[in-house]
Formats: sequence, structure tokens, C-alpha cells
Amino acid sequence: MRIKLSRLAELLDVELEGDGECEIVGLGALASAVPGQLSFLSNPAYAGQLAGTRASAVIIGEKFRASCPASKLISLDPYVTFARATALFHVEAGPPAGIHPAAAVHEEVRLGKDVSIGANSVIEAGAAIGAGSAIGPGCVIGAGCEIGPRCQLRRAVVLYPGVRLGRNVQIDANSVIGADGFGYAFDGGKSVKIHHGGSVRIGDDVDIGAGTTIDRGVMDDTVIGNGVKIDNQVQIGHNCVIGDHTVICGCAAIAGSVVIGRHCVMGGASGAVGHITIADGVEVSAMSLVSRSIAEPGRYSSGTGHMKTSRWKRVITRFQELDEMALRLQGLEKRFKKD
Amino acid sequence: MRIKLSRLAELLDVELEGDGECEIVGLGALASAVPGQLSFLSNPAYAGQLAGTRASAVIIGEKFRASCPASKLISLDPYVTFARATALFHVEAGPPAGIHPAAAVHEEVRLGKDVSIGANSVIEAGAAIGAGSAIGPGCVIGAGCEIGPRCQLRRAVVLYPGVRLGRNVQIDANSVIGADGFGYAFDGGKSVKIHHGGSVRIGDDVDIGAGTTIDRGVMDDTVIGNGVKIDNQVQIGHNCVIGDHTVICGCAAIAGSVVIGRHCVMGGASGAVGHITIADGVEVSAMSLVSRSIAEPGRYSSGTGHMKTSRWKRVITRFQELDEMALRLQGLEKRFKKD
Amino acid sequence: MRIKLSRLAELLDVELEGDGECEIVGLGALASAVPGQLSFLSNPAYAGQLAGTRASAVIIGEKFRASCPASKLISLDPYVTFARATALFHVEAGPPAGIHPAAAVHEEVRLGKDVSIGANSVIEAGAAIGAGSAIGPGCVIGAGCEIGPRCQLRRAVVLYPGVRLGRNVQIDANSVIGADGFGYAFDGGKSVKIHHGGSVRIGDDVDIGAGTTIDRGVMDDTVIGNGVKIDNQVQIGHNCVIGDHTVICGCAAIAGSVVIGRHCVMGGASGAVGHITIADGVEVSAMSLVSRSIAEPGRYSSGTGHMKTSRWKRVITRFQELDEMALRLQGLEKRFKKD
Repeated sequence: MRIKLSRLAELLDVELEGDGECEIVGLGALASAVPGQLSFLSNPAYAGQLAGTRASAVIIGEKFRASCPASKLISLDPYVTFARATALFHVEAGPPAGIHPAAAVHEEVRLGKDVSIGANSVIEAGAAIGAGSAIGPGCVIGAGCEIGPRCQLRRAVVLYPGVRLGRNVQIDANSVIGADGFGYAFDGGKSVKIHHGGSVRIGDDVDIGAGTTIDRGVMDDTVIGNGVKIDNQVQIGHNCVIGDHTVICGCAAIAGSVVIGRHCVMGGASGAVGHITIADGVEVSAMSLVSRSIAEPGRYSSGTGHMKTSRWKRVITRFQELDEMALRLQGLEKRFKKD
Repeated sequence: MRIKLSRLAELLDVELEGDGECEIVGLGALASAVPGQLSFLSNPAYAGQLAGTRASAVIIGEKFRASCPASKLISLDPYVTFARATALFHVEAGPPAGIHPAAAVHEEVRLGKDVSIGANSVIEAGAAIGAGSAIGPGCVIGAGCEIGPRCQLRRAVVLYPGVRLGRNVQIDANSVIGADGFGYAFDGGKSVKIHHGGSVRIGDDVDIGAGTTIDRGVMDDTVIGNGVKIDNQVQIGHNCVIGDHTVICGCAAIAGSVVIGRHCVMGGASGAVGHITIADGVEVSAMSLVSRSIAEPGRYSSGTGHMKTSRWKRVITRFQELDEMALRLQGLEKRFKKD
Repeated sequence: MRIKLSRLAELLDVELEGDGECEIVGLGALASAVPGQLSFLSNPAYAGQLAGTRASAVIIGEKFRASCPASKLISLDPYVTFARATALFHVEAGPPAGIHPAAAVHEEVRLGKDVSIGANSVIEAGAAIGAGSAIGPGCVIGAGCEIGPRCQLRRAVVLYPGVRLGRNVQIDANSVIGADGFGYAFDGGKSVKIHHGGSVRIGDDVDIGAGTTIDRGVMDDTVIGNGVKIDNQVQIGHNCVIGDHTVICGCAAIAGSVVIGRHCVMGGASGAVGHITIADGVEVSAMSLVSRSIAEPGRYSSGTGHMKTSRWKRVITRFQELDEMALRLQGLEKRFKKD
């Protein structure tokens, strides 16, 4: 693939400064790009790499226009422009047309136009798959699932029976949607299983990473809103409701019946305990645990930050005595006032 | 499915107050139930929803009898009664009978009566599967595995060779039982792999969620006791021994050679470092790390609780200086005494 | 398998003291070994088990020579010698020769000598698999992947297109290598997906556990160095570079663009935030979060240690007021000095 820089400026709707005839053949990071590649600068921490870059052109903000030796595409938001450029240079062989002979497709399924089903996939009775959707190799689509148009289940994705996906949903390998939630009532020392009659309902334009699990609801459904982006190895418990356009980073663990608002960010390896509500616009930092509801938007954290283990061992001894220490401080203050 | 309320009271062994002729067609949450559904009240936090519920009947404790406008089933433990009711209304198509033609079953396997094996599953030489057990689509059962009667391996479960399951074990999609543990000896800068000759032995009535991994032992087996319930994405290292009826919530990470007692609860995303012992009846809260053995039953926690990130940044700076702060407090106390 | 103790001493290159004619049939832990088994003592915490062991021989350091009643193999590093012994006694049926008839192998693949491909595996166009490598049942090898010689992909491993593995790489079940990283640019409230044109490049002698995910890079590759050992359920984000011989324990979560040095250890369930650099020789303890770059080798920790929940609740209340407490202490100190 070769695209002239002037044509790229048009496609990306940005200003060109430099050699519009230059042919761009791909993308490269500032530090490792070679001639013929287009790079970008978004995070100012990398501005020092501008002077030495070998990229033929750089997507850049107005502020760095003067310091860039190469041709440039001037953008109000270089990262968004770069994201759009990745789509232009993305070449991936489309899924093979039709149903692979080694797929096991039940006779009672409804398939839209141009559906692709990969080798060794299993489609159970009553499932419906929308036009242009691709089920990669090794997937299992449970009975009665409904998959909207233009979805991609990449490889070895498991949907339990009755799961519903909207339009343009992408799910990466080995994710499991719709297994029973973890619900037991304890009768003396024995556990009584709660059978899950709800399902999972996923909106439009949702991305789900690899190895993620989303459990079905007890009576109502577990609901993932439109535009939600979920990374790898995330766990979402039964009856959660995730608001539109919320982002959940890798390894986050969301317990059951958690309601998360719209436009939230759950950081990597963060968590939320069950039966709480998190307001719209909340950002939770990495490996932080949300242990009670959050009503106000804003950024929230838990944890201690890392330090040398030798110092840390002394610190946590003090930490565990913090209540006594606070009482001693109060005692001193009182005595000091009396004197 | 339709069951008269009077019949439900019999089946669930609880007192009926109200219209026994009413036909119940399913279950619903207090807030979202429609007429014809049975609901329940267990957590008093939801008592406010009683007055407005449209459910035809509610499973309820004596204490709330007067405040419930609908017919009621009076239970000493409404949550246990509700759990039993979910079983009555659970309709799931049983696994198809027999061996799917697209399964690859080695000729030297022993299959009990009424065993079901799904499409694209692989059963290796010498495996034995007990009567009434169902191996879902896409599973791999390693050589010499022994699976007891009435087990269900839902979809795409992998058992490595030699793993043994008791009776009535349920495993959800993409869980992996019996991979090698993570064991190396370090010889200078190079690692020497420890080959694992033990296996994994799982008791009766064990449930294992989706995407969970349980490693085989080095010489002895990794052992999961009877009635243990394990949620999604849990990791259990080599040579762990998990006591009967213990509950391990989602994303918990248990290192190698950890012995956990009976009737424990490991909270979501909690962890335990290797080579420690946890007594019977210990409950560890969410995202807490058990960093040394626990000898007494009770509840244990670690972590800091979440707070606004702006405050948290100031707090953790102080935290990291906590040892110096404690010494300064001691210094003040000494000088104060002298005066 | 039976090996005379004298022969074992030769094979393991250690000194024998005792009955060299004794036949060893396997390995056993000190406490549970039976006659005919070889055991070992490495961790002094288990020295008390020496006197009562029924093992026929024990691998042991010079220091414990006198206290061992059985025959012994005297080693400078008993754990390394034990690790070597596990290889001698490891009997695993090799993978079946050739291509299973139920595998779906594209016609345009290059297979080295003695390659084994298991049932229901899918090998896409243009993939190359080196001599002596074994692809277990249920794997999906994407288009254009390059797998070196003597690799083992145990069961149900997914490689996305274009992933490259070196020599002697072992990957356990349900791991996913090369899915797209989690990258979006946010344009107002909408996310613009960043397409990932890089891949994943894995060195020689790398082990990867079960259920682990390693994402492909945006423009450059994600790189795993030689001799790296990665446990189960680890997440490694796009564009990470992991140095040679580094060890990453179970459930660790490494965000994108993290550079980890050589000979590091990331503890179980530890984490690292994105875009940081960790020096050679850093060890991070279990469930600790690395939240900024680390320039010096050594051991690092975060967290609080566990305690009884009743005490912990009081302590974290104080923790959240730690900044105010520090200011009050400063106030007292100032007033005290004035007096």
C-alpha cells in the first residue's frame, strides 16, 4: 500500500506542510520509523525524538510545528488523527467467505448475508447471526444466541445459550460470555446453587478482549452498553450494568450487581465489590479497589505506591499500628493544650 | 412451565399466605418482576421495593410478612428458599445424547451409561467418563483422565492427562485443569524446569467457573476438596490443598503449596503467597493479599480503601514516611514526659 | 522406570553416600515419599522431616549430611539437582506423529520434519512450523505465523496472524498470543480504534503458562526475550519488551509499552502501569503495583500486609487522614520547640 502524503492529508482532514508528493507506505514510531513511514507525536514526553526521526512525515500539533524536520500533518488532536491513520494502513485478510466444511452448524440456525464461519466452530440450534458477521475458528455459539450484523468473534470465543450481541461487536480469543454467575445460598455448611435464568445483552460497537468472562444474570440480564471497550482478562459478574462508552482495562475484576455509569474508566487490574453503584465519569486508577458506591465523578485510587521492600517492611508495621499512633497523637495534643 | 403457588410452597417446604391457586411462570427481581412471577426479599436494603412490586408472590422472612402486599411464601432463610426455587424454574436443554460425529474420541476410552460428548471435543487414550456425564463442545480430555458420574464440562474445558474428578463436578468454559506448575530452579542465570509428576484431584460437588486454571503438583497432587466452589479466572498453583466447602471468588490468585482450610472464603481478586497455611473458617476480603499463614478463623483484610486521587496522592507520600513519622511521635512523647 | 542410585549420582553429577545398588523408581516429597523414591531437602524449614522420611535416598546439602538417615546424594544446590532429577523421571507420552485427520491444515503451510498436529487444530495459510514442534489439539495458528523448532503448544493455544516464536518455546492451554492491544484515541465521547500493525516476537527457551494473553504491538512488535518464563493468566500489553531470563508469576498484569529488564521477577498478581521502564535485576513482590519507572535493581513492594478486618477498618480510617495527621504532628513539634 502506497498513499501520497497530500492524499493522506485529505483523508485525515488535516493541514499538510511539506512534500505532498512523498509516498507513504506505512506507520512507524518516532524512534524506529524508516523513510517512507508516517509517524506521530502526541505525548510531549517523546518530543525529544522529533529532531532525530527518520520518518518521512509526522502527525503533529501546532505547537511542535517548528521543531519537526520532516514533512508534517498538523492536527488539533494528533493521537486521534494517528488512530484514523492506522485504519487506512490496516491490511488484514478478511475472513474466508461462507461456512468452513469443518464447522458444525446446526440445521436450525438463521444466517444473514455474507456470514463467515471458521473451521471447527460449533453453532447450536436456534442461533441467529447477522449479515457480514464473522465467526472465527474454534468458536462455540450456544443455542438461541442472537448476533447482530458486522460482528467479529475472532477465535475460540464461547457464547453460552441466549446471549445477544448488537451491531459491530468484536470479541477476541477465548473470551466467555454468558456462563452462570457465582451464586450460592448457604444452608448451614452446604451451598445451594442459584440457577441463572437471565442472560447477557451487549450493545453496539462494543469491543471485548481476549480471555475475558462476562457472566449471565440471575433473573434480569447482565448489560453492556453501547460503545463499551473491554480489555483482556476482565471479569464482569452477574447482573452488572455497564454504561455507554465506559472503558474497562485489562484484568479488572467487577463483582456481581455492580452498576457502572457512562464514560467511566476502570484502570488495569482495578476492582469493584458487589452491589455498588459508580456514577458517570468516574476514573479508577490501576489496581485500585472500589469498596463502596461512588456518587461524584472524578478520579479515585487506593493502594500505597511501591517502594523498596526494606523500607516497606518498616512502613507496614507502622501502618498496622496507625490507630494507636493517631490516639497517641491526640493524647499529646490534649496534654499540650492543658499546659 | 407453570406451577401453582400452593404446590411451590410444598416443594419448597415453606408456609403459604395468600392465593394458592395463583399460577407462577417464573422468577423476577422485586423491582422488575411482572404478574405471574415469584420474587424474594433477603437483603433488608431492598425492603423499600416491597410495596411497589408487581410480583404475584414473594419469598419473605416472618419480619416482613406485614409489609408485603402480594401473596407470600414465609421462609426462615428466604435466600436459600429462593435458590431452591431457581432450580425448579431452571429449564436448560440437556446435552444431546451420545457422541457427536465431529468429536475425536480415542478407541481406548471407557464411557459410562448416557455419556454425552459434544462436537469437536477430543478424548485421549485411556480416559474414563462416568455415567450421565456430559462433555460439551470443544473440550480436550487428556490421556488417562478419570471423570466421575454426573459431571458437566460445559464448553472448551481442557483437562491435562491424569486429572481426576469426583461426582457431580461442573466446570465452565475455557478452564484448564492440570497444566504444569510454575517451577524452576535457578542455576546461575539459567532456569532449570521442574517437571511435574503429580496431578490434580478434585472432589465431589465441586463447581469451577470459566477461565480458571488449576496446576498439577510436583510430586504429590493438587487437591480440591468436596463441595468447593471456585469462580471465574481463579488461579490455583501446584500442590495447593483446598479444604471442603471453601469458596474462592473470581480472579483470586493462590500461589503454590498453599493449604486452605474448610469453609473458608477467599474474596474476589484476593491472593495468597506460596507455602502458607490458612486455618478453617477464614474469610479474606476482596483484593486482600494473605502474606503469611493465618492460624485463627475470622475475617482478614489488606489494602487502603479507595479515595479521591488528589487526596490519595498526599496520603501515600505520608504513608511512605510513616516510619519516620512514628519515630518523631515517640521523640515528642519522650520529651513531653521529661518536662 | 528404575534407575540405580549410583547411576543417578553419575547422571546428576553429585556425590553418593549410601547404597548405590538401591533402585529408585520415582520421586517423592520428604513427608510422603515411600521406599523406592528419591526425595530432596532444599528449604531448611523442612529439615525436621528428614528424620522420619521413608524415602530410599535424599538429595541434600553438605550441611544436612549427618542428619539424614537414608542414602544421600550430596549437592551444592539440592534444588537444582532435584529439578534435573524431575527430568530423568518425567514420562510423558510424546505427541502422536504427523497430522491428525481431524486437523484443518491449509495447503500453503511449511512444516518441518517430525511436526505433530493434534485433532481439531487449525493451521492457517502461510504458517511455518519448525522441525520437531508439536501443536496440540484444538489450537489455532494464524496466517503467516512462524514457529521455530522443538516448540510445544500444548492444547487450545491461539496464535494470531504473524506471531513469531523462537526455538523450544512451550505454551500451555488457552493462552492467546497476538490479539490487538487495547488502544483507542478519544474524540469527544467516542473512541477511535487504533489498528495494530505490529506483532509479537518471542525468543528461544520461553515458557508461557495457561490462560495468558500477550498483545501485538501498534507499529513495533511486542518482544519477549530469551529464557523468559511466564506463568498462568498473565497479561502483557502491546509493545512491552521483556528482557532475557525474566520471570513473570501468575496473574501479573503488565500494561502497554512497559520495558522490563533482564533477570527480573514480577511476583504473583503484581502489576505495572503503562509507559514505564524497570531496570535489570528488579524483583517486585506479590500483588505490588509498580506505578513509576524503577532505575535501580533490588526488591520493591506495595500494599499493606493483611490483618484482622476489625483492626483494618480502624487503620484505614486513619490512613485516609494521614496527611492531616502528619500536619498535626508538625504543628506539635513546632510549638514544642518554641516553648
